[in-house]
Amino acid sequence: MKVTVDDVNDLARGAAVLGAGGGGDPYIGALMLRQALARSGEIELIDVDKVPDAALAIPVAMMGAPSVMVEKFPNGMEFEAGLRALEKRLGRRAEFLLCAEIGGVNALLPLILAARLGLPVVDGDGMGRAFPALQMVTYHIFGLRAAPMTLADEFSNIVTVESTDDREVERLARHVTVAMGGSALICLYPMSGADAKRSMVRGTISLALGLGRAIRKARGSGSAPHQAVLEYLRTTEYYKHCSMLFQGKCSDVLRETRGGWTLGRVTFEGLGGWSGRTLEIQFQNEHLVAREGGSVRAIVPDLIAVVDSATAEPITTEGLKYGQRVSILGISCAPILRSPKALAVIGPAAFGLDAAWTPVETLNSD
Amino acid sequence: MKVTVDDVNDLARGAAVLGAGGGGDPYIGALMLRQALARSGEIELIDVDKVPDAALAIPVAMMGAPSVMVEKFPNGMEFEAGLRALEKRLGRRAEFLLCAEIGGVNALLPLILAARLGLPVVDGDGMGRAFPALQMVTYHIFGLRAAPMTLADEFSNIVTVESTDDREVERLARHVTVAMGGSALICLYPMSGADAKRSMVRGTISLALGLGRAIRKARGSGSAPHQAVLEYLRTTEYYKHCSMLFQGKCSDVLRETRGGWTLGRVTFEGLGGWSGRTLEIQFQNEHLVAREGGSVRAIVPDLIAVVDSATAEPITTEGLKYGQRVSILGISCAPILRSPKALAVIGPAAFGLDAAWTPVETLNSD
Repeated sequence: MKVTVDDVNDLARGAAVLGAGGGGDPYIGALMLRQALARSGEIELIDVDKVPDAALAIPVAMMGAPSVMVEKFPNGMEFEAGLRALEKRLGRRAEFLLCAEIGGVNALLPLILAARLGLPVVDGDGMGRAFPALQMVTYHIFGLRAAPMTLADEFSNIVTVESTDDREVERLARHVTVAMGGSALICLYPMSGADAKRSMVRGTISLALGLGRAIRKARGSGSAPHQAVLEYLRTTEYYKHCSMLFQGKCSDVLRETRGGWTLGRVTFEGLGGWSGRTLEIQFQNEHLVAREGGSVRAIVPDLIAVVDSATAEPITTEGLKYGQRVSILGISCAPILRSPKALAVIGPAAFGLDAAWTPVETLNSD
Repeated sequence: MKVTVDDVNDLARGAAVLGAGGGGDPYIGALMLRQALARSGEIELIDVDKVPDAALAIPVAMMGAPSVMVEKFPNGMEFEAGLRALEKRLGRRAEFLLCAEIGGVNALLPLILAARLGLPVVDGDGMGRAFPALQMVTYHIFGLRAAPMTLADEFSNIVTVESTDDREVERLARHVTVAMGGSALICLYPMSGADAKRSMVRGTISLALGLGRAIRKARGSGSAPHQAVLEYLRTTEYYKHCSMLFQGKCSDVLRETRGGWTLGRVTFEGLGGWSGRTLEIQFQNEHLVAREGGSVRAIVPDLIAVVDSATAEPITTEGLKYGQRVSILGISCAPILRSPKALAVIGPAAFGLDAAWTPVETLNSD
């Protein structure tokens, strides 16, 4: 499958929905990808089963607060600088690029680098959504190591982190990201094709592209675009348990950028059939939990997507504003994230939430 | 020249005087060096002129707040881990170890690693004293690059920093040091023998050893040990302009650990012939400036050493306590630090001081 310049907007929009509020505004990434594709023509998106077991595949992503990325965007040089530094450390060239996080701008970054270098990208990612920490990926859950990892900034400063403990890598890299101004280009979890096969959330890049296309087509058709989102997701393997959690108006946002994250809470007041009701969402880059009164309506790792009521344009946590009319969707995460081993890493407790994880389809089974 | 276990205390004490209040308490370093020498027997200390021009020499040191090092000390494993990581990055083994900073514990660290690995240490350093930042070394002043640089912690986490700008290296490494708990083992400014020859402050390890010996001998002789310090320093090439700035009692200390540094001010009230007078010293790891009333008595890069009045035991900025009876010495720095190019890097303005640099011998030329 080929990705061309005509796919960029659809992919960016679909990925932003899957970002569950995080993953960064894809606007800058889409601009960069369009420019890279204008030069290179197309990128090969390949199924992980076609990657040789012994091949070297490297995930690339941005690390940091999405709020920062919107203003301090990459210049492109750091992409190659970071990858080359990791390749030098490994003594070997990458043959495939991987996506760490399908949600938001990180869906686009491997494609930007792939277009610049003429490398293929494997269809899939390490989250099936977005998460705020390095070890919150299936690559970690399946025992791969984040290190050696490189971080690069727009001055092509390069920092390489090595540790046998992924949480130490996250901690050190988070400090470096702050030192680099709040966001950095990262290359990490270098892995073999065999490891990619056993640990990836498969097919999520083409899935995000399909979702974006469905939204675009619905906008021209007169039907409600958020209905098209639900209809498309119901045809997929991972996201098929999805429903409208709430419709209303953003009435309050509390947000701060701290420790390299965008943290806060947002409140929505119901409109139309939801009038008189209130939904509150707590976020750390991504939406973590949606509560109505004392009841959890959806909780991480299931996805909570906030989209514009009229256009289904996804709204990131740093884009939330008073007065926005939104539809809020609850979406089942990839089953690979629902095992006890996975929930220990990306379940509610990993975010300091005291609520237990309950599947979104159970919480909304009316 | 060989350094043996019998030299450790003298070297540590002499280095602590040259630390000008900083460089870290040498106690832990001395313990580690004694243990390493008990196993290896001796270390070869060689003149830089005997290092082949093409040889690879690597300075090793601790980075961070001295206040932290006193409690969070190295386990030794990180010394080799950090050096090996840098060697791997360079694709070459180090043939000589260098000292970055003769003042304090950093005088001992290259010797500890040298004893463990059987490598020779070049006699000299990059400061002729202690300074609080990575780029405040003659290696930087003479145009060598700090990066690639490695930082290692007691868990053998390794971070490699690469940048063409030494101040960026300092900034990034300082953040990493904080992430590593406030102190880290660093290997940086990898250089050729030819570069070592043109950039080192020569002979300072043997000079510190001689100073420590002079203090020890004076203690047994009945004469005032601080007089022995001044007498010994007057025989040296760098430190010959030295004098007693003040004698008195520590009456107030304001000290905080912030941004990876020990920062503060200390006030002394005169005793004996100095009665009725007050001296204030401002410090950032090291003593920066000594003022009596409105007059500067000594200012960085010249050395201000605070030693115990009875024993000439050097007192570091984190060891300052109310009630201590001290002698305060002003000592000329190595001439290599007095050029305009050097003063731009390590002069008063580099520390945010608004006073101009005036040689200590001019300020105290009565």
